[in-house]
Amino acid sequence: MRIAIVGFGLIGGSIARALRRIKDMDVSPDATGMSIVAWSPSGRGPRSGLDDGTLDSAPDHLGATIDGADLVVLAAPPLACLALLDEFAGPLRSALAPDTTITDVASTKRLIVLRAAALGLSFVGGHPMAGLETGGYGAARDDLFADRPWLICPAATSVPTDVTRVEDLARACRSWPRTIDPDEHDAAVALISHLPLVLSTVLAEIGLDEGSWRVASSLAAGGWRDMTRLARGDPEMGAGIAATNATELARLVHAAQGRLAAWATDLERDTPDAVTLRQRMERVRRGLEEQ
Amino acid sequence: MRIAIVGFGLIGGSIARALRRIKDMDVSPDATGMSIVAWSPSGRGPRSGLDDGTLDSAPDHLGATIDGADLVVLAAPPLACLALLDEFAGPLRSALAPDTTITDVASTKRLIVLRAAALGLSFVGGHPMAGLETGGYGAARDDLFADRPWLICPAATSVPTDVTRVEDLARACRSWPRTIDPDEHDAAVALISHLPLVLSTVLAEIGLDEGSWRVASSLAAGGWRDMTRLARGDPEMGAGIAATNATELARLVHAAQGRLAAWATDLERDTPDAVTLRQRMERVRRGLEEQ
Repeated sequence: MRIAIVGFGLIGGSIARALRRIKDMDVSPDATGMSIVAWSPSGRGPRSGLDDGTLDSAPDHLGATIDGADLVVLAAPPLACLALLDEFAGPLRSALAPDTTITDVASTKRLIVLRAAALGLSFVGGHPMAGLETGGYGAARDDLFADRPWLICPAATSVPTDVTRVEDLARACRSWPRTIDPDEHDAAVALISHLPLVLSTVLAEIGLDEGSWRVASSLAAGGWRDMTRLARGDPEMGAGIAATNATELARLVHAAQGRLAAWATDLERDTPDAVTLRQRMERVRRGLEEQ
Repeated sequence: MRIAIVGFGLIGGSIARALRRIKDMDVSPDATGMSIVAWSPSGRGPRSGLDDGTLDSAPDHLGATIDGADLVVLAAPPLACLALLDEFAGPLRSALAPDTTITDVASTKRLIVLRAAALGLSFVGGHPMAGLETGGYGAARDDLFADRPWLICPAATSVPTDVTRVEDLARACRSWPRTIDPDEHDAAVALISHLPLVLSTVLAEIGLDEGSWRVASSLAAGGWRDMTRLARGDPEMGAGIAATNATELARLVHAAQGRLAAWATDLERDTPDAVTLRQRMERVRRGLEEQ
């Protein structure tokens, strides 16, 4: 079993470390024969992974990395995944074995799964629901995915072996594989991850341009920090997520505009109606408590 | 020195505990002669404070509580503070000594300071910038305000003694008194606290009404939790804050609508422009890092 990881930051590195842990535990015949290889554009992460014994090999070229792999894991931002799929269906097609399974770990699934199917690739989309604020291979840990869901979106071109391989990868990372339709996936993450990212960024945009920013930021505490944490994340990742889930995200952004308009109406009454405002907040708190 | 605390939840209770600590340390002649009394509508918090030795007295009536006090601390939500000021200028006026100083700890200052001045009270607004997610006297702690700013807004009717008493209260709580204009205060907290509260509530409102809520909430993790934490707070407090800072907050809500409209435009291009989205996010991250 040869597993090739393409892109080697926090997620790719954590997958490699989880697999190395399994291999070192020697718990199954599969594990001892497993070979873990990785490549990234800069090569820095894979070199570290080779040095610290996580990787069995870190080839210089992408083609040599995926050559003979049973499973290729795209651990790159969403737009990079789309470009890699094009390469795999074009210049790198001959490096892939006929039964190589390709999967990814990007935060959006619909466009990526559609593209892979359109290109006729043996692809199963994946999204491990775990992360850290710190990126890069240096932050990778073998328990990053432990007890977290790993969402799996088969493509029209997937065969059962492809799905099984990706489920096994998730289990090897001590994650729980859970199959979900790509549209349903993108709607759910638009709500719980991508709209929060936009609202966090919007809050920071307003803050930075306010005349009161210098005074206000000197007073900011926990609430402000929590609410702007997502805006401090990796801009390339954020932009790729927004661009590949744009339709669903735009719909929610419009919903937020509508809710804010209702808030403005409540706030701009001659005498702001604290009872209405309180009912609005009570309803939300009850709903969140039932979550 | 008699200090009367009106309202006895997390903030009022933490002030009492900080004062009790000073008194027990016996560090100044003032401290040994200090009497700490409190009243709340339900009476539960003050009874606990009397039982555990924090309070010297917990009268049954508000009038008896403020009778002879040098300093009265309103530790109630903003709308309750407005109502209390009306009572102090009306039915309870005779219970106040001529040189009693009144202060408060509410999260908005402009309306409260204006009301106190209009009523001719010896009032200095206060806002200790500290809190916890858990409310109530049970969560009170003597170090809640340690090393945090305590914003102070004198009213037109304050005399220097009033300001000194409130600064001394802040220092006794190991906080840093910092004088600020009430308008400047309300603009700053609208940005760092009240707009975040509205955005957090709006996010939760959208979530609860989405068809994908059941699936999405089962997948929600740290980002969603951080972004909805403020929406889980006390609705009465939140509504009072919004109602008493409505003008400034409404202005920022409109700003958020405008920013979201710009996001929607970027997202709804024929091909979402990841470069523009990335630049937007990069600018925000840089700005926040300089904070």
